[in-house]
Amino acid sequence: MRTPLSDIEIQRELSALDGWSRKGNSLIRTFEFPSFASGIAFVDRVARVADNMDHHPDIDIRYTKISFHLSTHSAGGITPLDLKLAAAIDAAAADAT
Amino acid sequence: MRTPLSDIEIQRELSALDGWSRKGNSLIRTFEFPSFASGIAFVDRVARVADNMDHHPDIDIRYTKISFHLSTHSAGGITPLDLKLAAAIDAAAADAT
Repeated sequence: MRTPLSDIEIQRELSALDGWSRKGNSLIRTFEFPSFASGIAFVDRVARVADNMDHHPDIDIRYTKISFHLSTHSAGGITPLDLKLAAAIDAAAADAT
Repeated sequence: MRTPLSDIEIQRELSALDGWSRKGNSLIRTFEFPSFASGIAFVDRVARVADNMDHHPDIDIRYTKISFHLSTHSAGGITPLDLKLAAAIDAAAADAT
């Protein structure tokens, strides 16, 4: 789960993930919420999922916009673990709506 | 509360705030926590305080390091409201330890 994927593998996997893009060694997605409190509640949900996976996204909170940056720093790239976390974040977002 | 402070006023007020520094039009402080979950719990506390003040910091979560950036965008500078929020974040941090 912690071996870097090739560019082609990342591109293929990204096509199955709605709303995610690649920037260098990170997968990035920004969500917007109707209120600051609902955005923070989403961060809480993602934090629990991430802690259970022992894989922690960088999170930027800009009022109602929440951005996640996923990368496997120890591997120096994007790994299957990042894709798994991206899918888990999407699932948490689907539950939130 | 939403009128920008002068450079001298900001410098004087900063001297009374431990751990905060100024970068351009923002006040910045980074806290480090023993675990990811305890950092997220702190974000929750600060979020409630910020929502009550209707003044919301930018928040960067980097594993156990949490950074807050305070600025009054509508005023184009640092205002008394930012200093009040900085003090409130410090009080939340004092409660957390």
